[in-house]
Amino acid sequence: MEKVRPHTLSGFMELLPEAQAKFDKIADTLRRVYSVYGFTALDTPLIEASDVLLAKGGGETEKQIYRFTKGDSDLSLRFDLTVPLAKYVAMNYAKLTFPFRRFQIGKVYRGERAQRGRFREFYQADIDVIGDGELSIYNEAEIPSIIYRAFTQLGLTRFVIRVNNRKLLTGFYDMLGLSDKSGDIMRTVDKLEKIGHQKVGELLTGELGISESDAEDILRFTKIDGSTQQVLEALGEYRGRNETFDRGLWELETVTRYLADFGVPQENFKVDLTIARGLDYYTGTVYETVMLSHPEVGSICSGGRYDDLAGYYTDRKLPGVGISIGLTRLFFVLNDCDMLSEERMPPADVLVIPMTQELSYSVSLSTALREAGIRTQLYTEDKKFKAKMSYADKLKVHFAVIIGEDEMAEGQVSIKDMYAGQQQKVPFEEAPEFIKKVLTLKPDVKPIKDGQ
Amino acid sequence: MEKVRPHTLSGFMELLPEAQAKFDKIADTLRRVYSVYGFTALDTPLIEASDVLLAKGGGETEKQIYRFTKGDSDLSLRFDLTVPLAKYVAMNYAKLTFPFRRFQIGKVYRGERAQRGRFREFYQADIDVIGDGELSIYNEAEIPSIIYRAFTQLGLTRFVIRVNNRKLLTGFYDMLGLSDKSGDIMRTVDKLEKIGHQKVGELLTGELGISESDAEDILRFTKIDGSTQQVLEALGEYRGRNETFDRGLWELETVTRYLADFGVPQENFKVDLTIARGLDYYTGTVYETVMLSHPEVGSICSGGRYDDLAGYYTDRKLPGVGISIGLTRLFFVLNDCDMLSEERMPPADVLVIPMTQELSYSVSLSTALREAGIRTQLYTEDKKFKAKMSYADKLKVHFAVIIGEDEMAEGQVSIKDMYAGQQQKVPFEEAPEFIKKVLTLKPDVKPIKDGQ
Repeated sequence: MEKVRPHTLSGFMELLPEAQAKFDKIADTLRRVYSVYGFTALDTPLIEASDVLLAKGGGETEKQIYRFTKGDSDLSLRFDLTVPLAKYVAMNYAKLTFPFRRFQIGKVYRGERAQRGRFREFYQADIDVIGDGELSIYNEAEIPSIIYRAFTQLGLTRFVIRVNNRKLLTGFYDMLGLSDKSGDIMRTVDKLEKIGHQKVGELLTGELGISESDAEDILRFTKIDGSTQQVLEALGEYRGRNETFDRGLWELETVTRYLADFGVPQENFKVDLTIARGLDYYTGTVYETVMLSHPEVGSICSGGRYDDLAGYYTDRKLPGVGISIGLTRLFFVLNDCDMLSEERMPPADVLVIPMTQELSYSVSLSTALREAGIRTQLYTEDKKFKAKMSYADKLKVHFAVIIGEDEMAEGQVSIKDMYAGQQQKVPFEEAPEFIKKVLTLKPDVKPIKDGQ
Repeated sequence: MEKVRPHTLSGFMELLPEAQAKFDKIADTLRRVYSVYGFTALDTPLIEASDVLLAKGGGETEKQIYRFTKGDSDLSLRFDLTVPLAKYVAMNYAKLTFPFRRFQIGKVYRGERAQRGRFREFYQADIDVIGDGELSIYNEAEIPSIIYRAFTQLGLTRFVIRVNNRKLLTGFYDMLGLSDKSGDIMRTVDKLEKIGHQKVGELLTGELGISESDAEDILRFTKIDGSTQQVLEALGEYRGRNETFDRGLWELETVTRYLADFGVPQENFKVDLTIARGLDYYTGTVYETVMLSHPEVGSICSGGRYDDLAGYYTDRKLPGVGISIGLTRLFFVLNDCDMLSEERMPPADVLVIPMTQELSYSVSLSTALREAGIRTQLYTEDKKFKAKMSYADKLKVHFAVIIGEDEMAEGQVSIKDMYAGQQQKVPFEEAPEFIKKVLTLKPDVKPIKDGQ
């Protein structure tokens, strides 16, 4: 029979079992944190009608979309979780309760050029709070606490949530009479971290044709730095000159005021006037999150406030605030930076190894262990003892339970703690409790390790 | 702005939040059960190269496949989880430990004709045990116990796992000198439940050209019925006439011998010589599972033993045994039969409702509740009290915690148990413990209800 070479497409992450277990632990942690904040899980199709998915139209993404026909239908794979959310909320408006808080962890598709660390199929882990007509600013204050708890639970310690407010920027450019160039300026200023102040200044006066003195004002504004209090005070000096700016300042003050109550420590939070997020979509608070040990990775969790989630589907005003974690890329980066925990992640805690032909005793033990909630494999292949123990080793199970003639005659089992390297006999009935105790006492290892 | 009508494609299940929570509870239960049996989670891409996915070629499914090109690549969406598993095992052979036990719960795609209860995107929940060259029969005995535990944990009580062995059938047809018609006979006999003995007899003598007396023998064989012991005895009378048959009988005896030790009660298990599973792929034990309250639904969990998982990718012999649950269809059917539990499934356990402009106290309480692992929403919209309570009602939260001037002055919170209809004041610090106690004492409701 002629063989086809089995392979996985490039740009598609497919993990070996232990790496998969690490990935799943990260996803599960996010799921738990999002749930604790009262978000409801959603699961939308991966395929949507192209007219629905591309209603917003144009843009960079459109070229990357997986679009095809099946029968008469023009179909596309989702490229983010926001457009499907907009569709869902517009469609089910009458059946939902607002503010509507949803999370979704799912795969999205973008046919990017294949490149190390770039994926064509990747997970996004999103949360959004959607209001009906209006949505209070306090939701924007809660978001940093969700980011903080998510990354802390994952084991990340050295990270900073950067926050800015788009109204501050648009208001400030308006003061300078540069409203029409607002979008271009933001996109230029967004490059500060990459190319530095001088180059940004040159782009402003050159490409954008902004006067030397305005460019200086813009750069001076981006240099406002220090503690939250210091930044707010410096911004206070611009107060009273532009309504949008004043509104943005009030929003930033409000968002920062409740941070401590929301449990976000000062060192994990920073007002940063240089971040703007590319998209015009955002209208208020914007967020980025950087790892201090690997700033070159860029933002690992971004988002912000928007005023119009679903304008291309409905006349209803649906403002919201949301954040997104690019989970597949984050996992790739963590692995690359050697930041994934080295915890053993076996598929089972116990391997039951029968040494005789008669299996009833071993089968009954496996059943008892499983009934106690202990993850158990029963090894039934006809191999030598050495091969059986080697299987237990490779699997990295915590316990091998050996059942020979003696054990069966005595009503005992021999439990070998593979991690501690100790072996002892225990009565059959006590085995589940004995093993459970050790497993329960194991310290909970977080999926990410983040040294100094 | 012109609007696009937001809609979801037909044949694609998209659930409202509470139904989604019920679906997720079912999927989570399966995940937990599969893990307890020591299966490792896998997550393969939804898109594969067409030559890989269609290596097996031909067949009914090929027409239904979502196949398209992106750039130069000929791509297809997976239509089951078995072919991707075969690819994965063939590809990663050297890095895996055998027997390799994996589970996967994921979406697959088939462009079936749109029809009520038929889905084009649907979840499969699969487990497989793959051997390297050989795989002991005992794995086949363990499978019914996994099916049993899975459905029991889901809340299903009235179901029967039907088991047969393909070797018994092929061996028996061989005895009659009908080996060459073996596949056709099995497919015909598979229709017994639908069309009855007489029609099957007519098809055998008509379409297949089998003699009256052979057809009678075949039908008599399918009528062997009774307890496991009775069926095994009846089959014993054919012993010694055909090697394959004898091997099949030994396998069936072995599989059934350990059932009680594996924890499967007699009433949930039945040897049924009429089931064959359509696919030629299966070579030994085969399984089907039916709901006694709704036999018309057909099998809700099927699978069996196969000898050659990945023959179109590799020369290695990779035998295995596996089962699959069509989760999306099962969920649809359960909902249709009114068998989903009516348990309230709110996105949060607690809604904190501040009655004042100053939010610090409410924010701190929300943080304390969340730190205790209690799923909490904080209501910050500027609405009347009645609207706030109506939100709590609609969300079906268990507790509304009301924070007014009085509560803040006294260091208390007012906790309203929305399910019990009781309200009482509790000191701020005691609130998490108070609420947690009630939540912990709640009985665990299973996702399926299965009356008599």
